[in-house]
Amino acid sequence: MTQLSTVGILSPGDMGHSVGDVLVTNGLRVITCLQGRSQRTRELAAEARIEDVPSYDALVAEADLILSILVPAQAPNAARRVAQAISDTGAGVAYADCNAIAPQTVREIGALIVEAGGTFIDASIIGGPPRGDSHPRFYVSGPDTQAFEALQQHGLQVEVLGQEVGLASAIKMCYAAWTKGSTALCTELLIAAKALGVFDALEQEFQSSQSMMIWRMQRLPAMPIKSRRFVGEMVEISKTFGDVGLTPKILAGAADLYRFVGETHLADRTPEDTSPLPSIEEMLSILVDHLPDRPA
Amino acid sequence: MTQLSTVGILSPGDMGHSVGDVLVTNGLRVITCLQGRSQRTRELAAEARIEDVPSYDALVAEADLILSILVPAQAPNAARRVAQAISDTGAGVAYADCNAIAPQTVREIGALIVEAGGTFIDASIIGGPPRGDSHPRFYVSGPDTQAFEALQQHGLQVEVLGQEVGLASAIKMCYAAWTKGSTALCTELLIAAKALGVFDALEQEFQSSQSMMIWRMQRLPAMPIKSRRFVGEMVEISKTFGDVGLTPKILAGAADLYRFVGETHLADRTPEDTSPLPSIEEMLSILVDHLPDRPA
Repeated sequence: MTQLSTVGILSPGDMGHSVGDVLVTNGLRVITCLQGRSQRTRELAAEARIEDVPSYDALVAEADLILSILVPAQAPNAARRVAQAISDTGAGVAYADCNAIAPQTVREIGALIVEAGGTFIDASIIGGPPRGDSHPRFYVSGPDTQAFEALQQHGLQVEVLGQEVGLASAIKMCYAAWTKGSTALCTELLIAAKALGVFDALEQEFQSSQSMMIWRMQRLPAMPIKSRRFVGEMVEISKTFGDVGLTPKILAGAADLYRFVGETHLADRTPEDTSPLPSIEEMLSILVDHLPDRPA
Repeated sequence: MTQLSTVGILSPGDMGHSVGDVLVTNGLRVITCLQGRSQRTRELAAEARIEDVPSYDALVAEADLILSILVPAQAPNAARRVAQAISDTGAGVAYADCNAIAPQTVREIGALIVEAGGTFIDASIIGGPPRGDSHPRFYVSGPDTQAFEALQQHGLQVEVLGQEVGLASAIKMCYAAWTKGSTALCTELLIAAKALGVFDALEQEFQSSQSMMIWRMQRLPAMPIKSRRFVGEMVEISKTFGDVGLTPKILAGAADLYRFVGETHLADRTPEDTSPLPSIEEMLSILVDHLPDRPA
């Protein structure tokens, strides 16, 4: 069985630093390369006891396995930099792309890593960052997933889906289509109801015939903070569905909706802000005010 | 208070004949005009004790109130024929459009009726056809909704939303965006999961972290029968959201999805067919087989 001693993480953001923290707590050395990263990421890395190494060359030379945990749009670029470093150093590292990206995108990334001489693992994360009671599942697929499976000995829950690169990304795309796609739909119809003057009546109707919607509405004010990073994920799911031959529009529309929410100051709040969230009514008023002017 | 004796229904389909049945049971004469209607509609009308009158002129002359209960695409044409009959006969009938159409569409229909000399009521129906334990709510709005409110004395549940034509349609659009939009999303991601080879793993993940999806999956095989008539409704909701300044794509995609499902023989089944529905796996296999061929 593969034994790991050092794992690299790109990048220690909200999810990445929590994963790193679990691995450090469970006996691994965790490293990253903070070149060009924000002050917030530096603080999160320090908090999780993740070591900064000076270059990507050092990262690939010292790590047995690198986890790419980023917003979708950054995934190809991170892979290119790692592939270059593998080429330059001849390091035989394994690289797992854990991002919410389309199977087609992950296959392109995988080809870069394999051509450079690395081992590629398709991976995805379902659930929130691991801390407290939250234990996300890490799905993996690819011809050789052993390095990732070894993380089970270091506090992560890993499920192997098969030998084909793309499976781990596919399950994430389909799962997030539901969780984040349904939230986009819910947000859109509530904005419309508010704009059209039927919000109170609709809320009452939901109360009597769709009580799950009341539960959804209560949780909705926590969404705008994440709206900007959901955009790229919705675009990847739209691509995934389009590649299969299904309509790309539902998820392209979800991307539009999150883009719209992300344009408001509701999205400026940081995850560290502990002041009370707006009420659903306040949130919807701000979003309705952001609608383009309509002809009377 | 307005007293009704005769109500016209266009047309006694699945919803219309059930509404007619309730009204007949509760003391009203219910009439329709079956010109150009299917044999199935004729049978449903007879079953509900709805009388056929020979012309639209007779319909507007004899009815105190006409309810338009159709698929969305037929709503404007039915209104035009009734407006013509009102013009021709000078009948002072009230006309309620109960269809799932955009506020903008209902305002156009309302203008036709009012110009012809009728009273127009915007209405919408939330819930399934009234029978057994099913008691849908009828939302109404407009400057004079008294004729419709009188139906409360004849077995229907009526909620008045206000004086503006468009409110009753708006609540229906927002509500159906959730019920039918979420079903479209759910169907799409399951087809994708099946096509991409991750259906079993996804089902297991839903079982452990999104158990409502399992409940949704169990009900899904009953959807294709209704898929063809959902298309027009999704188009109307897409229009409603676009008119407000929101993205029309989520619901335009839902229309695409129902159109796709409606192209398969799954949609040929009639509501009267009592043979067992396909399993979710069988249904998804048929839908995956209907996907366009992809380059290998």
